[in-house]
Amino acid sequence: MLNVGVIGYGYWGPNIVRNFMALDQTDVGMVCDLNAAVLKKVKSLYPTIEVTQDYKEVLRSAKIDIVAVVTPVSSHYELAKAALESGKHVFIEKPFTATSKQAQDLVELAEKKNLKIMVDHTFIFTGAVRKIKEMIDDGVLGDLYYYDSTRVSLGLFQKDVNVIWDLAPHDFSIIDYLISHQPESLTAQGVDHVKSGQENIAYITVHYPNNLIVHVNVNWLSPVKVRTTLIGGKKKMLVWDDLQSDEKIKIYDKGVQMDTKEGMYQLLVDYRAGDMYSPRVDHAEALKSELAYFVECIETNETPINDGRAGLRVVKILEKADESLKQKGKLVTF
Amino acid sequence: MLNVGVIGYGYWGPNIVRNFMALDQTDVGMVCDLNAAVLKKVKSLYPTIEVTQDYKEVLRSAKIDIVAVVTPVSSHYELAKAALESGKHVFIEKPFTATSKQAQDLVELAEKKNLKIMVDHTFIFTGAVRKIKEMIDDGVLGDLYYYDSTRVSLGLFQKDVNVIWDLAPHDFSIIDYLISHQPESLTAQGVDHVKSGQENIAYITVHYPNNLIVHVNVNWLSPVKVRTTLIGGKKKMLVWDDLQSDEKIKIYDKGVQMDTKEGMYQLLVDYRAGDMYSPRVDHAEALKSELAYFVECIETNETPINDGRAGLRVVKILEKADESLKQKGKLVTF
Amino acid sequence: MLNVGVIGYGYWGPNIVRNFMALDQTDVGMVCDLNAAVLKKVKSLYPTIEVTQDYKEVLRSAKIDIVAVVTPVSSHYELAKAALESGKHVFIEKPFTATSKQAQDLVELAEKKNLKIMVDHTFIFTGAVRKIKEMIDDGVLGDLYYYDSTRVSLGLFQKDVNVIWDLAPHDFSIIDYLISHQPESLTAQGVDHVKSGQENIAYITVHYPNNLIVHVNVNWLSPVKVRTTLIGGKKKMLVWDDLQSDEKIKIYDKGVQMDTKEGMYQLLVDYRAGDMYSPRVDHAEALKSELAYFVECIETNETPINDGRAGLRVVKILEKADESLKQKGKLVTF
Amino acid sequence: MLNVGVIGYGYWGPNIVRNFMALDQTDVGMVCDLNAAVLKKVKSLYPTIEVTQDYKEVLRSAKIDIVAVVTPVSSHYELAKAALESGKHVFIEKPFTATSKQAQDLVELAEKKNLKIMVDHTFIFTGAVRKIKEMIDDGVLGDLYYYDSTRVSLGLFQKDVNVIWDLAPHDFSIIDYLISHQPESLTAQGVDHVKSGQENIAYITVHYPNNLIVHVNVNWLSPVKVRTTLIGGKKKMLVWDDLQSDEKIKIYDKGVQMDTKEGMYQLLVDYRAGDMYSPRVDHAEALKSELAYFVECIETNETPINDGRAGLRVVKILEKADESLKQKGKLVTF
Repeated sequence: MLNVGVIGYGYWGPNIVRNFMALDQTDVGMVCDLNAAVLKKVKSLYPTIEVTQDYKEVLRSAKIDIVAVVTPVSSHYELAKAALESGKHVFIEKPFTATSKQAQDLVELAEKKNLKIMVDHTFIFTGAVRKIKEMIDDGVLGDLYYYDSTRVSLGLFQKDVNVIWDLAPHDFSIIDYLISHQPESLTAQGVDHVKSGQENIAYITVHYPNNLIVHVNVNWLSPVKVRTTLIGGKKKMLVWDDLQSDEKIKIYDKGVQMDTKEGMYQLLVDYRAGDMYSPRVDHAEALKSELAYFVECIETNETPINDGRAGLRVVKILEKADESLKQKGKLVTF
Repeated sequence: MLNVGVIGYGYWGPNIVRNFMALDQTDVGMVCDLNAAVLKKVKSLYPTIEVTQDYKEVLRSAKIDIVAVVTPVSSHYELAKAALESGKHVFIEKPFTATSKQAQDLVELAEKKNLKIMVDHTFIFTGAVRKIKEMIDDGVLGDLYYYDSTRVSLGLFQKDVNVIWDLAPHDFSIIDYLISHQPESLTAQGVDHVKSGQENIAYITVHYPNNLIVHVNVNWLSPVKVRTTLIGGKKKMLVWDDLQSDEKIKIYDKGVQMDTKEGMYQLLVDYRAGDMYSPRVDHAEALKSELAYFVECIETNETPINDGRAGLRVVKILEKADESLKQKGKLVTF
Repeated sequence: MLNVGVIGYGYWGPNIVRNFMALDQTDVGMVCDLNAAVLKKVKSLYPTIEVTQDYKEVLRSAKIDIVAVVTPVSSHYELAKAALESGKHVFIEKPFTATSKQAQDLVELAEKKNLKIMVDHTFIFTGAVRKIKEMIDDGVLGDLYYYDSTRVSLGLFQKDVNVIWDLAPHDFSIIDYLISHQPESLTAQGVDHVKSGQENIAYITVHYPNNLIVHVNVNWLSPVKVRTTLIGGKKKMLVWDDLQSDEKIKIYDKGVQMDTKEGMYQLLVDYRAGDMYSPRVDHAEALKSELAYFVECIETNETPINDGRAGLRVVKILEKADESLKQKGKLVTF
Repeated sequence: MLNVGVIGYGYWGPNIVRNFMALDQTDVGMVCDLNAAVLKKVKSLYPTIEVTQDYKEVLRSAKIDIVAVVTPVSSHYELAKAALESGKHVFIEKPFTATSKQAQDLVELAEKKNLKIMVDHTFIFTGAVRKIKEMIDDGVLGDLYYYDSTRVSLGLFQKDVNVIWDLAPHDFSIIDYLISHQPESLTAQGVDHVKSGQENIAYITVHYPNNLIVHVNVNWLSPVKVRTTLIGGKKKMLVWDDLQSDEKIKIYDKGVQMDTKEGMYQLLVDYRAGDMYSPRVDHAEALKSELAYFVECIETNETPINDGRAGLRVVKILEKADESLKQKGKLVTF
């Protein structure tokens, strides 16, 4: 039985606690939050959990094996570093850290200490993303042409990060999981419309090897919520609408091909059979699978696919996006 | 009664002929196309129309007052120039010309000859765009923050132009109509996935004064057709889904505001009443209204809103997009 | 070349004329309508067509082989009878006639005269209905459990018929085509809300052999247009949304089965793989296929699937529905 | 502080427990279920709650003020009666009882004992139904013409009740709340396709005064989930799609009117402005509001709108539906 100390009980913390409680192999020993009212609520729901406003108590506690860092990104580095130094495994919210330097430090520290880091890239544990991964790996889609994500809604404005750091980690962690290649260059444009100090709308275009183009549209000021991704492959194309309760993924038997006719090269969009197919997608709670997998990684000393290095790769993209943003969309290479 | 000669009877030509025939103030005297089979079809449908494979016959004909140029963009300049030189008014497909230099020439020639040019920016004559224009002009939306258009489908690959020149003229002609300001700079990224010589996917981001950001996502290789535009304003926001037969436009009473609380600036997304309202939109055929308006402009010697200068402004944006595209998305200023 | 005389040039007549004109094997020789303005329009569009306000001229004309009756149902019998007596084949709008007695008469008359009747059950020539027929005949759906159609919109109130006779012929002609069995009994409820003399809303439930239940919901006063049919089979289930431009038909790998467990019968809804599949559906104009098929039936002396007997079967259901309606929904047997 | 004993911890019980726990004015003292494994789960989640497999312990417990009956309908009467006789207020799942006789008994018993009964007609506490009630009461819709509900999905087959008793109580409790009149007559058709002993598909048509027609389509064997209600009024019409997360309710400025023109009565469907409006709907959890309201009714000795008499009215409709069903859809009067 692994014992978990959870630091931060805001929007996402309750889900972390509930799921670690529900797992047979884990127990939540402590919850830390600066807000006393929140701790009172934890205590009433889970009388057995110890609560504290001082995260150092969590780190000092001998019974705690895993520290879950569920705080704003600005505090990630300090908390994770202290946790690793106290000999705890770390489960940490995305984005991993505020800089790639910090991410690199944590990765090295964890390796030195022989401890595990898992970055909470929850989406890669959803039935939808697993199914897409399967489609790509099995060659159903063929060589990938583009990945085009629209992730907009009327959102809470974050204070410490812009809309890219808030929403795009979902996309980049998914892409990191789906695609074996690393990005070559990117450009990002964005605007801070309300003088909040952070861009509330942004467009990021990332170039990958083999002409794969990735585009992410993030917006805190959209009147409607959209979570739609189009993935175009040489053989087939896919639409993933994560807001659908059923039929989240639709695969289209459509594509393009070059034909030679009458001595001339002619481009034909090929509709083929033109059928559409929507595979059943597993509805199990992704976070639960992810936490169970973390426990398994610790117990078998396996490296999680969403380890600190995966977190680092995502942070690097976010960092490059900021770099481009500050130079009015200049192409930045990796 | 104005007599029209139509050059080009491909995809769009039949609509031009049908609508000019239906107008009380116009008649179609001649149709020109290189394809004899097509001319035979014209003749069977409209026995009174003269047909020819030689466009010069149209220009020479004394009875023709208006020449409609409904050919690929690469031939626009030559045909329009010849028509103006023959003393004909010109109705011409979008994009106006292949270069801004050509557009400038035609504008000057028309002015010298005291002839009218109308560029077929059909969308600005639709009920939907008219309603959006009304919303903006009446201050319903407030200062504009962003205009974000997705215009993708499984399309025919054009040979003489890339996807930007094929699809984005719709967006830029609409924006030119809706917004009084001129663009300041833009970036464009795109890829030619099938070695067709033309980009089949592209993203264009255009910066306008007052932090208005315009984004256009065009794609010939999308498995699904999308024609959705989000327009965010300080007061309200709007979604225009042109594929809906009803409820094309939805206006959301949602926005954002800065509040001062407890001595600190705090950003609140303001949901207000949160109601949504979908105004009735006129369903009349836009092309018919446009052509009637052209006749009116000729008869009253009025300058069309979609005149050669409007066409030129759109071509300039397309040209700048190509310029940025060739420099891997470099920011290009106007 | 068969020559067609079209009687009635209202809402649907122009489509009949256009399609008969477009077929290589047919020509439209005459159009008859009581409205002189309408005839003028026909003349301007098709200068070669003779026009008349007297339908008897059509019947007298030796050149006419086929009479298309495109008038309100109340005049169908008289016109079709006269046409048959004049030795013309008859293409006639649905519903075939105002009573089953009339339908029976016409069927017999046509047989005696060795002439063809085709009732315009257009829907059975659409790609969607053809695909559904294929699914049923191939056993994909398994034994049918139910057919549930919602066909509502804000419609024109007909004067000579109620909403059942206006909208439900679509459904009953489709069902007649899809299902080999004949109905056993039905009930119908409806209300005339605006004292128009005709019910504007109605629900018809028809019982077929083997527990197949058919339900049709028709409404002239719905704020939204719905054209959705659910078909449940023992093996699979199908949703047909005719308002979708793509993905009109979706087939679900879902069903129910009885299982024996622990000595008890237990009913399990079986989700099986749970996949959904949307086959490509032919988009060709149904009316064109139908008319070509009529010509073929005449030339090869074949009996159309949508002959007078099919029209009669549909009229019988409508008649029974009226009978039930007048008795407050009493179950009426066939 | 009112103490609640919950009998039945199956599908809905956990929601009842969670919400009574969350209310400041109530506490859950006991949970009863026949399944020991379920009780163990309750204990681990809420260590303070007493658990038992014998419902009589709940009734005997002096600390319990309210008994919540969350069991299949077949046991409702016995349990509720015993609870009332033990002096407990009763919160009970819908449908209230298996027969109207039972419902009548319980109503009388509660009145004699001066205890409250609340039937869990949850939907009437949703923001959507509250908004519709407001629209009707404020005269926005005008006189009601029809109420047409489609409530279908791939559902669990109930053993003790048919699909009408399972799904239609939602509709009839909503209608009971929205409409002040009582039904006059109804017909119901249905089929048991899988020999389960219970109809799995059914259509109920209920006639109310003033030509209001109510239609409810319920189906356990639909491949897709639909929860859509159309409400037509003389002035406006409304569509309520409960599966939408936003824009659940849309109000259409559409209707019909009689006009006198040229000395003749003519019926015109009036599109008026034709706008659509979607009001913001409260998203608070309905069950929580309902339970708080129950506490308030007990404390202020107020009669709940969803009291035993409301429950009785709904059961009467279900009973009449069964009566009609058994007579093949015979019209049954109230």
